This record gives sequence, C-alpha cells and structure tokens, in this order.
Amino acid sequence: MTVPITVALLGGGTVGSQVARLLLEQQADLAARVGAPLELVGVAVRDASRPREGVPATLLTDDPGALAARGSDIVVELMGGIEPARSLILQAMAAGSSIVTANKALLAVDGATLHQAAAEHGVDLYFEASVAGAIPLLRPLRESLAGDHVTRVLGIVNGTTNFILSKMEEEGADYADVLAQAQALGYAEADPTADVAGLDAAAKAAILAELAFHTRVTSEDVFCEGITEVTSEDIQAARDMGFVIKLLAVAERTSDGTGVIVRVHPAMVPREHPLASVRDAFNAVFIEAQSAGEMMFYGRGAGGAPTASAVLGDVVAVARNHLAGGRGPRASTYADLTVRGIEEAQTRYYVNLDVTDRPGVLATVAQAFSDNGVSIQVVRQDGHGDDAGLVVRTHLASDGALRRTVDGLRGLDVVKRVVGVMRVEGEAGA
Amino acid sequence: MTVPITVALLGGGTVGSQVARLLLEQQADLAARVGAPLELVGVAVRDASRPREGVPATLLTDDPGALAARGSDIVVELMGGIEPARSLILQAMAAGSSIVTANKALLAVDGATLHQAAAEHGVDLYFEASVAGAIPLLRPLRESLAGDHVTRVLGIVNGTTNFILSKMEEEGADYADVLAQAQALGYAEADPTADVAGLDAAAKAAILAELAFHTRVTSEDVFCEGITEVTSEDIQAARDMGFVIKLLAVAERTSDGTGVIVRVHPAMVPREHPLASVRDAFNAVFIEAQSAGEMMFYGRGAGGAPTASAVLGDVVAVARNHLAGGRGPRASTYADLTVRGIEEAQTRYYVNLDVTDRPGVLATVAQAFSDNGVSIQVVRQDGHGDDAGLVVRTHLASDGALRRTVDGLRGLDVVKRVVGVMRVEGEAGA
Repeated sequence: MTVPITVALLGGGTVGSQVARLLLEQQADLAARVGAPLELVGVAVRDASRPREGVPATLLTDDPGALAARGSDIVVELMGGIEPARSLILQAMAAGSSIVTANKALLAVDGATLHQAAAEHGVDLYFEASVAGAIPLLRPLRESLAGDHVTRVLGIVNGTTNFILSKMEEEGADYADVLAQAQALGYAEADPTADVAGLDAAAKAAILAELAFHTRVTSEDVFCEGITEVTSEDIQAARDMGFVIKLLAVAERTSDGTGVIVRVHPAMVPREHPLASVRDAFNAVFIEAQSAGEMMFYGRGAGGAPTASAVLGDVVAVARNHLAGGRGPRASTYADLTVRGIEEAQTRYYVNLDVTDRPGVLATVAQAFSDNGVSIQVVRQDGHGDDAGLVVRTHLASDGALRRTVDGLRGLDVVKRVVGVMRVEGEAGA
Repeated sequence: MTVPITVALLGGGTVGSQVARLLLEQQADLAARVGAPLELVGVAVRDASRPREGVPATLLTDDPGALAARGSDIVVELMGGIEPARSLILQAMAAGSSIVTANKALLAVDGATLHQAAAEHGVDLYFEASVAGAIPLLRPLRESLAGDHVTRVLGIVNGTTNFILSKMEEEGADYADVLAQAQALGYAEADPTADVAGLDAAAKAAILAELAFHTRVTSEDVFCEGITEVTSEDIQAARDMGFVIKLLAVAERTSDGTGVIVRVHPAMVPREHPLASVRDAFNAVFIEAQSAGEMMFYGRGAGGAPTASAVLGDVVAVARNHLAGGRGPRASTYADLTVRGIEEAQTRYYVNLDVTDRPGVLATVAQAFSDNGVSIQVVRQDGHGDDAGLVVRTHLASDGALRRTVDGLRGLDVVKRVVGVMRVEGEAGA
C-alpha cells in the first residue's frame, strides 16, 4: 500500500482542473480502490503563473515536454488537438508511462500510431472519455461484449447538436435562432462548425466502429452530413409521422458480414425508440448484438465533471493494471473488415415533394422510385393547387439507389421542388 | 497463441447450452480477442445421456464435482441455487480455477465467502450475468466509475414484474389476469413468488449496492415489498397524475454519507423519467454519481442468449487476465458503510383515501400529516357523498414518518379506507 503510483497531467482546462481537484480531494477513496495511493506529480498548463483552485502552485508547469518525459507511471493527456498532443503522448510512452486520454480527434485521425506505440513500449492506452463523456461505453464494448458479435451501433454522441434539435422540436424554432441560444448558454462554441457539421460526431463514430468491429476506422472513412440544413418544416413533418430528428452516428456490419459502414447524418427516429427520448445535451448509444440483443447507454456526454469522472475511471483501471503487473486489453483490429461507402448502406428515405396538382402525379413519382428498385412504404398526398405535396417513406434499399431516385425526382416535370429528404433509422425490422 | 485456456461448464440449462454453443461456434473470433484459444473441456449436466444440440456428447458429464476439481483455467457456474453451487465453486477455486458465475442468489446470500476464497487462492471471480442479464453494468460500476462517488442506484432489474406492470398499464387489466398471461408466455414461472414478491430483485439490489458503495450488503439487508398488492386502480391513479408504476430496486447513500439503504418496492415514477419508458421484460439501471451525473443502462435482463453474452464477456476478460498473468479488480468493501433500515430513507408517498363527505375533512387529514412532520406537495379532492376521495402526494420525509402518518390516517373517523399507498421516486430534486 505504500509505493505511490505517479500521475502527470497534460492540460489544465475545464476537464484537467476537475481531474486534478478530484485526484487531490478523493485521495483516500482512490487509494482504497486502487490498492496504492495516486500521487499527482505535475500539471502542464499554458500559464503556470495563473493559480488554479484546489491545485498547489508548485505542481503547475508550463513545460509539458519535460513533464511528459519524466517517466510517471501514468500520463493523462487532456490538451486536445493533434499536435503537440501526439508527440507528447509518444514521448511519454517511450519513457514507460501508460496513457489516459480524452483526445477523440487524435484517436480518430491517427489512433494506429498510438496503439502501435503502446504495444511496442508495453504500456496501457485508455480513452473512455473520448466518446460520450461520462457514459461507460468503450469498456463495455471492448470487454463486456467481447464474447458477442456486434451488428450495429447507433449513437447520439454530440451534445450541442442534440440540444439544438431538441430545442427546435420543443419550441418550433428555426435552426439559426436555436444556435444563437445554444451559443449564449455555452452549449455551442463561437465557431460551431465542428459540432453542427458533424465532424465531432464523425471522430467518435470512428472510435466506436473500431472497437465494435475490431477493424481500423479513421475519421476519413466516415460519411458525414451535419444538421445545418435541417429546417423547422422537416421537424414538423417528422412529428406528424410520429418521428423525431436526431443527428445519428451509425456504424454497422454489412449484411454479408465482410464490411463495415460508418456514417453521421440527421435521421428520423420513431418516437417510441429509446433514442428518441434522449433530449438536450444528453448522449446515448444504442447497440445491437447477436446474443445480447438491444441495449442502450445513456448519460452526460460532455462537461468538466462528467468527463473527469470517465478520465479518473481510466486512471484507476490503469493503476490497478500497473499494480497487478499486467496491462489491459490491447486494441484489436484482427477482423479487418473492409470499410465500405454509404452507397452500399441499407437505409430508408423520407422524401417531401412539392408537386403540380394534376392527375397522374402519384403514378409518375411512384415510377421514379420503382425505376431504381426502391419500394414505397407509405405515401401521403397533401393540399391542392399550388400547395400540392407528396410525402413518401420508402422500404429499405441501398443508399445509392435512394439517392439516384431523389436525383431522378428533381428532373421530373411534375415535381416543383424537393422540400425535404432525410434517412429514417431505428424502425422495427430495419 | 498456442497454449489453450481451458474452460469447464457447470450446468447445461438454457444459458449453459448457449454458452457451450457460442464457445464452440465462435472459436476463431474468441481466440483472436483473447490472444489464445478457449478450449471447452467439459459440461456438467444432470443427464449426460441426453444429447445437446451443438455440444459433442464426449464433453457431457454427470459428475460436476470431478469437473470442478480438475483445475481448468476457468470454471463457469450456471447451476444456480446455493448448494451444490457454492461447494463446487470453492472446490474449483481451491484447484486454482478462476470463476465466472451468474448465480445472484448465492452472491447475495454468501458473496463474502466466495470473494474471500477468490482472494485466498489468487483467482478471479466475475459475475456480470448475475444482474440485468446482458446489460454491462457491474463492469462500469466496478471500473468505469471507480474514480467517482455514486450516490444512488435505481433499477428495474426483474423482467417478469416489469412485463406484468407494463401489461397492466397498457391493457388496464388486473394483476391476476396479467400474471396468468405472463405464465402462458413463459415470462413468469408456475410458482412466481421469487419474482412477484421482489426476492429476485432484492438479491440483485444487494449485489449492485455492494459494488456501488464498497460495502458488504446481503439479501437480508434489503427491505422488500413485491407487486402482488398493486391494483389497476393504483395504475390508473398514477397515470392520471403523469406517473407509471415500476418495481424499483433502490440503493442509496444516506444524506450524512455514512450509511447505505437498500430497498425493493413498487414506486410511482414520473412519465418523463428515463426509467418510465422501460417496458415489457427489459431491464434498466439508472445511476447518479457526483461527477458523472445521471446515467442509465438499458437492455435485455434475461433469456438464454443475452445472459450467455454476458457470461462470455466475463470468460474473455478472465482469460485475458490469465494470459497477462494478472487478475481483475477484487471485490472491495473498504468503505464499510452502515446498512440502515428503510425507516431512515428519505421518500415521498402517494396516499389515496376514501373519506366522509363533510366540511373539515381536508383540515383533519392535513393535520395528521403535519403531526408527523410530513409536508404535503399536492392534494386533490374527488367525488362527493359515498364516493368522496382525497389523493395526497407528499414532499420528502423519512419513510418512518410517512408510515406513521398512514397508520394515523387509518385511525381517523373521517377516513373510511386507505385505498392506496405508494412511494414516489425519480422526481426532480428528490
């Protein structure tokens, strides 16, 4: 119980200060749970002269390189971004330190380099906090479901966009208004691109897919469409049909079992689906596995304290491994499935059309679907004259065929405008 | 990659045969994930002459004692019940085998003996499948939240009672009718006592509480009330107020932080609470932690394949530990909180009264609450004459004070009958 396990912290922002505070405040509890005390040996910050509440000034340093290289048992990286985070992590591993990180961007872009270095140097690399903040997700995927066969992962993994879509639905408000409100509340950044364009969700989708399917997946493999084009009309139309709109991260095995498709886009989800009730800034991940069936993990996806909780869980796990003289499970990409494009994904579309009000319109539109081998599930005709509209939901078809259908519709005389197109996910049997 | 890890299976029932089948069918996947092949060396069944689909006859034995004692790397116990399961597990541990079990009854009654023996013999004891079937729950509690401070666990952990309560609500049917329907569908046993009296949920509550609060908790420590007294009137009244009725397992830290209270009873839950939408035979566990905030785990709580998935996840984890030469985290009861009685729990009551229709009734009833220091949140007067009724929901108070209040109400002249009493959980601020 006496030799302490040393922990160095790179990054003193929102999450970093919470981790430092908890390491110091909960010393006794953590020592009892690990079997040895955890000793915080340093916190690398941008400005070491600025005091941080609850962290002794002597622990602060503005030299992350020196702190990373000093051979602490555990180095916690919370700086974010690709560089200098990657170099510091590699330096720390070379010095024999195990790594805990929340850096989703780095993992999604260049996880392979990190995993390989961890294996070479015989150190742990844990990253629970990189996806869905406080929700224990990577550990269940990597460990609890290790004896099962995951077929599909559907996640709401970006709190900002879920907040915006929830508010648009509750208040019937427009995207721009709600975005401004989210920025005022601190739920969205001044430059919200990474969130609203789906890039943040795509990085998390890549990490989830890699774990679920034991296959290397990077951000570049992920089809990505954000929420900037979602209108209050789309949300109203979805509601009328018993659906809500969510930005989903989807990772799925192809039906022949040899491929994996990873995509992020807004989707209509049936109101009775467990994901539909995930509101505001909450995150949730829905997993379908061959033996386990359907399961869902729900919780806070961001914020200093929730993310710090996930980081500390990893610190405890790595510290226990260290004491036991072993290492946790390594990243595994043995299945080596082929990453396929979204054209091959089996999806359903909702299509909302402004049409001319004359006999035979439905027949012409239906023919356009059938020409592409797409079968229609529901069609609704609304209005008359200038207001004539057609709303179509399809059965499952390849995303490529569905997209070709929509392109075909745009070219029809009877179609004045394609008002809305959206994928539909989470229906029974889908 | 060549020395196989040997696995012996005690029990060839629904779960056992699925585990055996998956071990054989998914050999290649499991070997890749573990880093060594898993070799099934025997399955102890009651009648070894009866063939089991997918399991070679040569692996079957009717001598569990010999199989348990042969020193396999991993022994999986799926017989259930206290004896002979306990003796076989202890024998296997003495022979150096790590244990994977789904035996909630044994763990809740005498977990201490098993944990102690595991520590003595330096073997692993994993039991993810004992609570909430396929939902990864124990691993997140024991590992992911190891750096956090859990304050409360609220679970729907018995599928049979959740199925019955869901059907009563959907169909407005009576308990007895729905129970018969559940029995016909195989969701309830011929003798449903363990489920409907809450005993199964109590065993799981004890296991969850022990993990969440690092304190020894047994079945006997759990206050337990089943669903046999829940009427369709209760469900209707709950619905009118925007609530659903669920059989909850609650484990919580007392407000002074030194005690833990564990209880199982029907409770009214607000319709917008994530637990309210957990229907049919699904399970879910809602966890509140200081840093992580609220999170929920949802999935299939029972059934051969889902439970087998959880068992195999444990087998893979133990096998990885074995290869790494380490062991997983030990059970920890370092916090050693005092287990307190339900009288000290802070709860809210819903009370439904038949009263005489005369002036001053409300004042008399309100006085009975106030005499016990209980404050009323909402009161609704219904009907007239013989049908006069009062429905009261209280603010938080000690369960003891609330129970004394109800006893006091029974003695009042103006109260003709206490029609319904139920605890209310999951309200904001509760």
